[in-house]
Amino acid sequence: MITRMSQLFVRTLREDPADAEVPSHRWLVRAGYIRRAAPGVYSWLPLGLKVLQKVEAIVREEMDAIGAQEVRFPALLPREPYEATDRWTEYGDNLFRLKDRKGADLLLGPTHEEMFTLLVKDLYSSYKDLPLSLYQVQTKYRDEARPRAGLLRGREFVMKDSYSFDVDEAGLELSYQQHREAYIKIFDRLGFEYVIVKADAGAMGGSASEEFLAIAANGEDTFVRSPGGYAANVEAVERPLAAEVDASSVGASRVVDTPDSPTIESLVALVNAEHPRPDRVWTAADTLKNVLFVLHHPDGSTEPLAVGLPGDREVDPKRLEAAVGPAEAVPFGEEDFAAYPTLVKGYIGPRALGAESPSKVRYLVDPSVVSGTAWVTGADEAGRHVIDLVVGRDFTADGHLDVAEIREGDPSPDGSGPLTLARGIEMGHIFQLGRKYAEALGLKVLDQNGKLVTVTMGSYGIGCSRAVAAVAEGTADEKGLCWPRNLAPYEVMVLATGKGDEVSAFAEKLASELDDAGVAVLLDDRKASPGVKFADSEVLGMPTSVVVGRGLADGLVEIRDRATGTARTVAVEDALAEVLRELES
Amino acid sequence: MITRMSQLFVRTLREDPADAEVPSHRWLVRAGYIRRAAPGVYSWLPLGLKVLQKVEAIVREEMDAIGAQEVRFPALLPREPYEATDRWTEYGDNLFRLKDRKGADLLLGPTHEEMFTLLVKDLYSSYKDLPLSLYQVQTKYRDEARPRAGLLRGREFVMKDSYSFDVDEAGLELSYQQHREAYIKIFDRLGFEYVIVKADAGAMGGSASEEFLAIAANGEDTFVRSPGGYAANVEAVERPLAAEVDASSVGASRVVDTPDSPTIESLVALVNAEHPRPDRVWTAADTLKNVLFVLHHPDGSTEPLAVGLPGDREVDPKRLEAAVGPAEAVPFGEEDFAAYPTLVKGYIGPRALGAESPSKVRYLVDPSVVSGTAWVTGADEAGRHVIDLVVGRDFTADGHLDVAEIREGDPSPDGSGPLTLARGIEMGHIFQLGRKYAEALGLKVLDQNGKLVTVTMGSYGIGCSRAVAAVAEGTADEKGLCWPRNLAPYEVMVLATGKGDEVSAFAEKLASELDDAGVAVLLDDRKASPGVKFADSEVLGMPTSVVVGRGLADGLVEIRDRATGTARTVAVEDALAEVLRELES
Repeated sequence: MITRMSQLFVRTLREDPADAEVPSHRWLVRAGYIRRAAPGVYSWLPLGLKVLQKVEAIVREEMDAIGAQEVRFPALLPREPYEATDRWTEYGDNLFRLKDRKGADLLLGPTHEEMFTLLVKDLYSSYKDLPLSLYQVQTKYRDEARPRAGLLRGREFVMKDSYSFDVDEAGLELSYQQHREAYIKIFDRLGFEYVIVKADAGAMGGSASEEFLAIAANGEDTFVRSPGGYAANVEAVERPLAAEVDASSVGASRVVDTPDSPTIESLVALVNAEHPRPDRVWTAADTLKNVLFVLHHPDGSTEPLAVGLPGDREVDPKRLEAAVGPAEAVPFGEEDFAAYPTLVKGYIGPRALGAESPSKVRYLVDPSVVSGTAWVTGADEAGRHVIDLVVGRDFTADGHLDVAEIREGDPSPDGSGPLTLARGIEMGHIFQLGRKYAEALGLKVLDQNGKLVTVTMGSYGIGCSRAVAAVAEGTADEKGLCWPRNLAPYEVMVLATGKGDEVSAFAEKLASELDDAGVAVLLDDRKASPGVKFADSEVLGMPTSVVVGRGLADGLVEIRDRATGTARTVAVEDALAEVLRELES
Repeated sequence: MITRMSQLFVRTLREDPADAEVPSHRWLVRAGYIRRAAPGVYSWLPLGLKVLQKVEAIVREEMDAIGAQEVRFPALLPREPYEATDRWTEYGDNLFRLKDRKGADLLLGPTHEEMFTLLVKDLYSSYKDLPLSLYQVQTKYRDEARPRAGLLRGREFVMKDSYSFDVDEAGLELSYQQHREAYIKIFDRLGFEYVIVKADAGAMGGSASEEFLAIAANGEDTFVRSPGGYAANVEAVERPLAAEVDASSVGASRVVDTPDSPTIESLVALVNAEHPRPDRVWTAADTLKNVLFVLHHPDGSTEPLAVGLPGDREVDPKRLEAAVGPAEAVPFGEEDFAAYPTLVKGYIGPRALGAESPSKVRYLVDPSVVSGTAWVTGADEAGRHVIDLVVGRDFTADGHLDVAEIREGDPSPDGSGPLTLARGIEMGHIFQLGRKYAEALGLKVLDQNGKLVTVTMGSYGIGCSRAVAAVAEGTADEKGLCWPRNLAPYEVMVLATGKGDEVSAFAEKLASELDDAGVAVLLDDRKASPGVKFADSEVLGMPTSVVVGRGLADGLVEIRDRATGTARTVAVEDALAEVLRELES
């Protein structure tokens, strides 16, 4: 069936939507693929839904191919299973919670580990039943604090989530690898540039974990790569501890007056002026700054945390979040300082921190802060700092915490050279969950020896609605959307741009023939100017267009390629064959 | 790809689930098609999901065929549009409401009239854009007071809902007819026995409305049919007003003592004994009973309502609900009677009721209570009734209300004879909504004369998840499920029931050949007894089974038809051809 622009439920917009921050959001809305219904909640119009359904079909095919079986869980879920795993609380404000008419607590599922675990427990009881992989393509809900970028970070979204169930680690490793390979096939077919990086498992628990990131300047995730092939989300980069240093030649620490030096920069300038080093100048990297946070745990309790790191680095909020999650870290406010009078704001030193200190504030330091290293740091008195405070000699921290920002050029953890940084959109995430959920919910099977063993699980997600945006983000240009052939709502758009019955008759005929040949075709049969039709065809982004217009009088039509912008003229009698040839290439 | 029972995520249960009231619920759970996740909320297992997806595919095909375009709205919706149409309030406890982290009011969509209306308003502005039909296959939520019967009345369910948009009534009529015809095709393909009945439009507003009911003894809806072809849900039956009667020969009304006659039955016995009629005996149909309710309006306000109807009929709660909706009618309690001292419980007569009476309670009477009819009814004094109280002469009601139960044999409104009653499951509902939503939300287009006119709408629903249960309900027998071919998860089940490698080798080969021929095949390759496999194949309900067992030694296999229970033996060399022939029939 030919779809006609005159009847298709679509309108292109001339203006960018006010809230559009990124190209995919801008163009998906302007091209009439999606519409905002509420913050972070979108309606799918016919063209957008077709793309989403194509993504879903690709995902289903590859999941079926590894023997995963499709199921579908409700979005509306009872509280109890999430209570059993603490996630009812741990999810905090990210969880949509509601009550039914009888007052029972319900939630809108953000992810379904609990439900899958319970279902397998309900049906299976023996090692013979395993391995098992189940998946669903389903609508999920997260009450994001800052929904943004259209489909890239929404509050209602479509995910494929799958879960593997194995009797032992070797089985889990195999299931994980099968999913990993299926994901590679899926992302290859979706057609965007992506990278597989080591991931932080975050609130999900578990151990081995990788992310598939679509490379995108507007991505929310930052990842690193090394010359040796190391690749990781910055959240997951684990900088090794620096080598210990022999501090025997370092003189005793000395407290100096440092008036009017509230910043690292002013402090460095002051010590270089008044207390110069003999060997070289002081830099920010010689200073140790101590940053105070209050950790808010999901159960409502709080505790202070001090992070010590070189003055030339900042704490990376996402790395911190990943490290302390599910707790939330909030910077110390005036009230917090008031509660710890031994901490002198702006001049906090290691000796006022730590379990053994008067403040008892837990003190964790950067991996570069190791035994023997000497630091310029706060002296715990207003207007004074201490020079040559040596780790192990003059103070000891409670442990290490690697939450400093990662910088281009930092040494790679694999030792293969400097790291490069880039940004990406998280499209897939694969986890070796292990036994966390099976243990919490009692999923056990009898093993070969008739002994009850706890099942080990993997968890694997793909953002289907996000993939629509990620592909758009990677392919849209200044004229509009530009779909790869296997995701385009229509493969070919036929534009009748000339006047007269002959033009529309030939356009109809060609569209019909393409339709008969099994090509999904969109015919622009509107009473509109050629300019409007050209512009719309570029905004809508079908990979191939055929322009039936003025040239028809000379027996010619034009075939345009949306991605390259190239056009070629062919004889009308060759038009069908030439378009079909285009589709094969 | 052959599916193997040894790997399929399914377990059949020997026992009925405790909460299963109807066969479809019992068997869908026992056969491992669905599992309960919360009251009225179900998870779809692989077999169940396949059936649901087949239903959805049929629905999509027929909706596409009438030119309806698929879109998809979120389930999580903002309050404002529903506030504009009053449904935020009118839905009462049936609506799942929640708040997001910022305190904004959200709801889980029970139906999407508002969202469709606003979307069309967003995109379209001219009569040239119409007619338009849009549809979605989407998950909906209603917080049912009594979720029951598995998928038949759930709180999370899949619906196809579509909406038509026209510039005038003639257009709406055409869109309605197109949907009606598409529905006939859909329900024919789904393969259950159904009836199209006149429906009450209920809380949806609008005028013309029909329901498609699957005929089922366990259905929640009762419908009537007449010899002349009249068919209606009992909620929608409109009994005509009875003909007026000449009461000139009826004597004056007289109050009589009726001690110890609290029921209609005892009252009739007493008046027959003490005040006999000359012409015939008194019957319950000669009495007029007055039933008191408090109407609770969605805005929280209340008002009393008295319903007068012959003593041989009861008020039908569903007809009453349909008539007074969105208000809820609650029977008078002691406190209510206390608030109206002129109403003497058990002896309430028409003269104590009505806008002009001291109680001022609104008084509506049955269509049989018309001018000139004489009644035995309450005398508004304890222990006394009044005989020959004549409508129009001795009292007047405030109007008519037709909420009495409909009974088998009642005259049909079309005059064609007595009504018959049967029960059904509401599978589809088509409405001529009219301009209610377009007016509330300002959906107007410019007509041919450049004048703004309000668009007129139709609304059309099909319960997709409910259809799975309705088909099961109509086809299951005492052995299990029994799917029609076009909805079955697998067309053929091959059972390897004998011992030895030859049996499993031939079963594998046959399954492979069927798979190559494009047949969806389920191979029971488990190490289980023939008895278990036979029983499971009957519970699972694939239309055709092939038993490869003992007969193989003699070169024979058995083909079984699940619906008829018949079996025939064929030679192994003919097995493939015979099974394929079976599928064509």
